[in-house]
Amino acid sequence: MISSTPSSHAAPADVTTGPIRGSRKIHLSPPGYPDMRVPFRQVVLSDPKEAPLNLYDASGPYTDPEVVIDLAKGLPHVRRAWIERRDFERIEGRPVRPEDNGSQSADAVVAACPASVPLRRGRTGQPVTQFEFAVAGIVTEEMVYAAFRENLGRTMALEDADARRADGEDFGAEIPAFVTPEFVRSEIARGRAILPANINHPELEPMVIGRNFLVKVNANIGNSAVSSGVAEEVEKLVWSTRWGADTVMDLSTGRNIHNIRSWIMRNASVPIGTVPIYQALEKVGGDPLKLTWEVFRDTLIEQAEQGVDYFTIHAGVRLAHVPLTARRVTGIVSRGGSIMARWCLAGHRESFLYERFREICEICRQYDVSLSLGDGLRPGSIADANDAAQFAELETLGELTRIAWEHGCQVMIEGPGHVPMHKIKVNMEKQLASCGEAPFYTLGPLTTDVAPGYDHITSGIGAAMIGWFGTAMLCYVTPKEHLGLPDRDDVKVGVITYRIAAHAADLAKGHPAAKLRDDALSRARFEFRWEDQFNLALDPDTARAYHDATLPKDAHKVAHFCSMCGPKFCSMKISQDLRQDAEALAGMASKSEEFLAGGGALYVPAA
Amino acid sequence: MISSTPSSHAAPADVTTGPIRGSRKIHLSPPGYPDMRVPFRQVVLSDPKEAPLNLYDASGPYTDPEVVIDLAKGLPHVRRAWIERRDFERIEGRPVRPEDNGSQSADAVVAACPASVPLRRGRTGQPVTQFEFAVAGIVTEEMVYAAFRENLGRTMALEDADARRADGEDFGAEIPAFVTPEFVRSEIARGRAILPANINHPELEPMVIGRNFLVKVNANIGNSAVSSGVAEEVEKLVWSTRWGADTVMDLSTGRNIHNIRSWIMRNASVPIGTVPIYQALEKVGGDPLKLTWEVFRDTLIEQAEQGVDYFTIHAGVRLAHVPLTARRVTGIVSRGGSIMARWCLAGHRESFLYERFREICEICRQYDVSLSLGDGLRPGSIADANDAAQFAELETLGELTRIAWEHGCQVMIEGPGHVPMHKIKVNMEKQLASCGEAPFYTLGPLTTDVAPGYDHITSGIGAAMIGWFGTAMLCYVTPKEHLGLPDRDDVKVGVITYRIAAHAADLAKGHPAAKLRDDALSRARFEFRWEDQFNLALDPDTARAYHDATLPKDAHKVAHFCSMCGPKFCSMKISQDLRQDAEALAGMASKSEEFLAGGGALYVPAA
Repeated sequence: MISSTPSSHAAPADVTTGPIRGSRKIHLSPPGYPDMRVPFRQVVLSDPKEAPLNLYDASGPYTDPEVVIDLAKGLPHVRRAWIERRDFERIEGRPVRPEDNGSQSADAVVAACPASVPLRRGRTGQPVTQFEFAVAGIVTEEMVYAAFRENLGRTMALEDADARRADGEDFGAEIPAFVTPEFVRSEIARGRAILPANINHPELEPMVIGRNFLVKVNANIGNSAVSSGVAEEVEKLVWSTRWGADTVMDLSTGRNIHNIRSWIMRNASVPIGTVPIYQALEKVGGDPLKLTWEVFRDTLIEQAEQGVDYFTIHAGVRLAHVPLTARRVTGIVSRGGSIMARWCLAGHRESFLYERFREICEICRQYDVSLSLGDGLRPGSIADANDAAQFAELETLGELTRIAWEHGCQVMIEGPGHVPMHKIKVNMEKQLASCGEAPFYTLGPLTTDVAPGYDHITSGIGAAMIGWFGTAMLCYVTPKEHLGLPDRDDVKVGVITYRIAAHAADLAKGHPAAKLRDDALSRARFEFRWEDQFNLALDPDTARAYHDATLPKDAHKVAHFCSMCGPKFCSMKISQDLRQDAEALAGMASKSEEFLAGGGALYVPAA
Repeated sequence: MISSTPSSHAAPADVTTGPIRGSRKIHLSPPGYPDMRVPFRQVVLSDPKEAPLNLYDASGPYTDPEVVIDLAKGLPHVRRAWIERRDFERIEGRPVRPEDNGSQSADAVVAACPASVPLRRGRTGQPVTQFEFAVAGIVTEEMVYAAFRENLGRTMALEDADARRADGEDFGAEIPAFVTPEFVRSEIARGRAILPANINHPELEPMVIGRNFLVKVNANIGNSAVSSGVAEEVEKLVWSTRWGADTVMDLSTGRNIHNIRSWIMRNASVPIGTVPIYQALEKVGGDPLKLTWEVFRDTLIEQAEQGVDYFTIHAGVRLAHVPLTARRVTGIVSRGGSIMARWCLAGHRESFLYERFREICEICRQYDVSLSLGDGLRPGSIADANDAAQFAELETLGELTRIAWEHGCQVMIEGPGHVPMHKIKVNMEKQLASCGEAPFYTLGPLTTDVAPGYDHITSGIGAAMIGWFGTAMLCYVTPKEHLGLPDRDDVKVGVITYRIAAHAADLAKGHPAAKLRDDALSRARFEFRWEDQFNLALDPDTARAYHDATLPKDAHKVAHFCSMCGPKFCSMKISQDLRQDAEALAGMASKSEEFLAGGGALYVPAA
């Protein structure tokens, strides 16, 4: 369903709303928090013996038919009361300047989102960040909320916890049978998880990123100098979270960057990340050599006040690392990394991001902007995987991680890139060792370079593996990677592919709740409950459409066969017949035992 | 290009012909075999410093503009002279019977392909199969041909062989730096590889399947009782090999099954596999309980005489194994497996496939039909992975493998199915141990059940991993798996996904030639040679179309940026500028060394 917004404030025209097919939005409250409404997506199954399945739901109020979406007013403030109770300073905020939107003439500037949030900044000496609260032993409401989200179905699994836990290989992670708020606190305090939640982003539905939680997925959106505008970007946000993106990065680089972001922030129920160097570069007319600490600092404050939840900072690209990339097949492929490398090299000077990293942390702490330490030297080809430049930077990121913690900041680490399968695991191991188990957040990795047009798949393979090995969040790759800007279909395919990777990783890690969905879907499949099979799918619309393509009639949705094999050759049908045979032959098991007992002589050589 | 066939013999109307975009068909001759013409697909690059790249080419004469395709006449007989020189018996062949085509009235039967092949059968006491030749120390022309195909670019890699070999983890495989015909012979003699090549399939372009060769991909085609006919099936064969299927299985189950197969066989340059129990079941009216050894035996001979290269035989589904599936979530999901399980259970008798396995081998040996031992008890859901039924069958398949070898037959082993990532590796290890290193041929495995509509991806993840671990051939899965019959687009997406998986596996195993293509493509990418990047892609058409979607002009195909980031933010552009900076600053390296020397003091804490 497309809902046009009732407002006239130059709001983006339409975003997709309404429930995901075959499920309904429900809200449940954690014990002791009757006013806290944590969203789930519930699939009610057609077999009354099957309990309804609650799925993790990152789609926000857009899938709730009871919420009227008005982009100009923004989303409800889930966190308002929690934030108001904390001792934060109310501030005026930095005035918007022409360069924030690309120095256009006033009439060319797209209007900002009229929804406003009372601006706040943390005080010195008072806890501001979730990390500071966690270290102080305080369980925040955000932690309670995130813990409860992680637990979907966990009570069910608990009954059989030992069996389920045994069935996984978690490579030293410590996934609990049940996630308590205290566990979330303790993981954040140890730096093993982050809960990205800018104090100026009250619309956020809190979630947690860490190796001992469900593997998360990030989707990138953003206009570029070449294409796309406000309406498209807000719809990409809504559309990508609809299909399961847990966080969204706004990588816009063109004009109107400040005002587009205002629409995104005020309408985002997921954490929003940015790469501030992109906007800083716009402010200096696109010339990396003109970048200064002052412009960058100003951009951090601008974006922190808007409510951005995490910043990618490429502070690991140091002058001394640049020569290590000289013989690479694909040089430096991170935009931020290449900008900073050029800046360093041209003036033969150390990166200001590195030198000013403590100041960056101080700013981020004031708003609780989490740091996502960018891997500016990630490999851009199989040939460059795991090279000296990549691992030198990773060591530096470890050093910066400890500085971030000293300053009370939440921090995660970005990872590659292009890596063949046999070189993936060492990336995870080195990251855990170098960065004190701070959450790893990887792009793919792409396991081969030869399939442009299918890099959601080349990278989905690597993403599933590194997610299994311990990566906390996977940054999606769309089919258009390397070729063009993703459209709506590409975004959906990218998100679904990465949900597959994340779920396959959760299963392999032995996450206690992950298998419930596979089992429910497989039972539906075996029992020819087609509707249930569609509704439990990651993409119910596509599953149904593919079935319709050969067997469109309603009667086929209860048929005990499908078009793949037809009725005579349906293994599931035959297998069910076989069970009936077996029940009829009550003595089957004992006969088989006789059979087995005489088994040594069973094989009769042909004459 | 669609070429309509010039013949009027009720031939399927059209198949896709013409070169794959951006490459040309070439033929090269192995040393000492001037008359042998081995096909490759050559990509000529726009940079004169880049050598043309020869790619493995399974697409057959259809992509050769110099071959006139006439489906009624069939393909050229590549193997004719080789077969004629061997001491085979000429036979009349079994007459076609009405039940071979589903017992329709004569006027309803689709005409058979008029192209005919002189029928032959091997003699007792004379080598017939590639296995028997190999064991006798004889290198056949097929082995020479297959060895040469495997070596594309290998001479280049040889110069740097040590470096390349070191860069992979092959889990105990023995991949040589260069594949000789003698190596192919030795691998076949040891049972570690097969070269499926029915002596009645002279159109075949020989290829080899084994852990020490390039990972291969199979595509399934076939009509069912519900849908599709002759024209569609032949086009699916041509279309799937065009995109890289190395073998094709015809899983037809409907009417006209014999005559459709005649069109497929006479126009197939790749090995064709079948599951003879499907046709046998058609012959007894679809009732598994009416199956007999006589009907099955007759079907084997019928199909062997038509030239089928390998048979899936579900002889591992023994009566004693059936009760092991009783508690499964999804029972028995193999069609052949469920048919045989029902047959066994209903009469409480041992499988005739198991009891008559030596007779089956005797028939297969006479035509050199390779055996593909079906995994009739493979898991159909994550819940059923690696269970007692699956592994009991695998043990039986090991027993049958040794019997096949005793009878001079080539044999490979089919594998799962649905398996979460952490349970994949043990499948490979058990298969190698139980089946004496006979080639493993797996369907996926699917790493989660929750994504119907995207099972090419859920399974592509598992396929890449198990291919890396040692699986010799990967059976593709299309997006329509579990939902419907694949159409043309689904077949292509399935094949490309599996080519990705196979190539990612080759890279990770350290196959000496695999990385050449990644490196060539990545150099093209870094140097903005867009045309070269498209042409080196697994799917040049899609890569180009995606680029066109945002930057359609010709000028954009030489532009030093793309629509993803635009000119200012292009990391590759900045990275190139950076290299120019670096060359200008001739002293960069030495300055950096100075820098590093003073590195201990480099980090300056912010004030």
